[in-house]
Amino acid sequence: MTYCVALKLDEGLVFLSDTRTNAGVDDVSRYKKMFTWEVRGERAIVMMTAGNLSITQGVITRLKVAIDNHAKDSDTESILTAPDLFRVAQIAGGLMRGLVGKHGDAIEKEGASSGASIILGGQVKGQPPRLFLIYSAGNFIECGDDTPFLQIGEIKYGKPILDRTITKDTSLDEGVRTALVSMDSSVRSNLSVGPPFDLAVVANDAWRLSVLRRVEETDPTYRAVSDGWSAALSGAIDKLPRLDHWFDESADG
Amino acid sequence: MTYCVALKLDEGLVFLSDTRTNAGVDDVSRYKKMFTWEVRGERAIVMMTAGNLSITQGVITRLKVAIDNHAKDSDTESILTAPDLFRVAQIAGGLMRGLVGKHGDAIEKEGASSGASIILGGQVKGQPPRLFLIYSAGNFIECGDDTPFLQIGEIKYGKPILDRTITKDTSLDEGVRTALVSMDSSVRSNLSVGPPFDLAVVANDAWRLSVLRRVEETDPTYRAVSDGWSAALSGAIDKLPRLDHWFDESADG
Repeated sequence: MTYCVALKLDEGLVFLSDTRTNAGVDDVSRYKKMFTWEVRGERAIVMMTAGNLSITQGVITRLKVAIDNHAKDSDTESILTAPDLFRVAQIAGGLMRGLVGKHGDAIEKEGASSGASIILGGQVKGQPPRLFLIYSAGNFIECGDDTPFLQIGEIKYGKPILDRTITKDTSLDEGVRTALVSMDSSVRSNLSVGPPFDLAVVANDAWRLSVLRRVEETDPTYRAVSDGWSAALSGAIDKLPRLDHWFDESADG
Repeated sequence: MTYCVALKLDEGLVFLSDTRTNAGVDDVSRYKKMFTWEVRGERAIVMMTAGNLSITQGVITRLKVAIDNHAKDSDTESILTAPDLFRVAQIAGGLMRGLVGKHGDAIEKEGASSGASIILGGQVKGQPPRLFLIYSAGNFIECGDDTPFLQIGEIKYGKPILDRTITKDTSLDEGVRTALVSMDSSVRSNLSVGPPFDLAVVANDAWRLSVLRRVEETDPTYRAVSDGWSAALSGAIDKLPRLDHWFDESADG
């Protein structure tokens, strides 16, 4: 599996992905699932992929080829020339639908799943930052203010912390820490999610990647976050109201 | 869905279950999923069920009928006369296998799942407390010391807190609080898990139900745990090391 999470905060966008793929527990590999494009001062785009790797790699490859082709033929549309993120989502969604249409039946016949999904976010100069979730069928939804995050892959373990703490006015720094905790929770509870992680931040109106970093399992800051979190949780349980009265009542019964 | 969790601690056993079942989002009901038997000073047994309700209700009904029959005919075996919890697991597992065998194909033909599972725990006088997870096929596993908890149903949301904080030397009071947090995380992140909850505690060598309580959503202690937990998580994120240096480094790049 995979776990990728993106936050859409008032200060900007946060993206975090793991690097583990597996076709069964005895076929585990590392694959980068985060792809970034930057035209400094003009636009920054981040994509994270989950699901069938042949489908998502096919989409990313075609996006890159289109960028190269644009250099030779300026009539070719690419995600670096698209007028806005919505159009980028349409382009990526169209490629996804085409690939699933072409290969889906054959993949499913082999007993594998052709399902795939992409989180796409970024900002083009002169426009607000945007964040989308693109499905296998090529359709997509946009992240809104009420639930200011998107997840793909093995999403359940890392969701409770987001549900409780992420609002759109969460700061970027706090957002990155929370995303790391969400990722760390998934890694600890599920073998199919694993380090290292790729982190990207697109601060508002910077039109660049404010942070782009590979976070290794041994990274001292990540270790401090992970260990600090475990200690904080135990401390938090300690501080909850004791339940002695529940035990006492029953003992009298 | 359902969420049930049981802890096997040095001081005893903790059981917590929700009461929501659903056959689609427009067919949501409340059903008790926890069943308890107590012969004070002799034995205490708790079962929690998940999965196909017709199968699990069938198992529980047959267990109760056998107890009634034993009153009339002392040769009839029942979970109240079984020599140990292992034998109780065999009895319940045998009933499960029989019911899935009888009805499974017809259920699956209707597009429903006949899958079911039961957490069984308790203590019989003269023996150690034991905790089992019984599968649809009637086979079962016993909870050990390394991972001193079992879960059934919608288990992923509530697993990270258990993975980080539950060890066998966790106290019963702390165990109940942690189980409530694990349940609350599932309720908040997934519509198919819902209050009220049923809580049972079997303290070691008491051979009775030390706590048996229905916890309503409005219960002030539960509210204090739930609200306290949200506040504690936000506080815990605040206390994690700040990542300014990650932002600064990238800004120089």
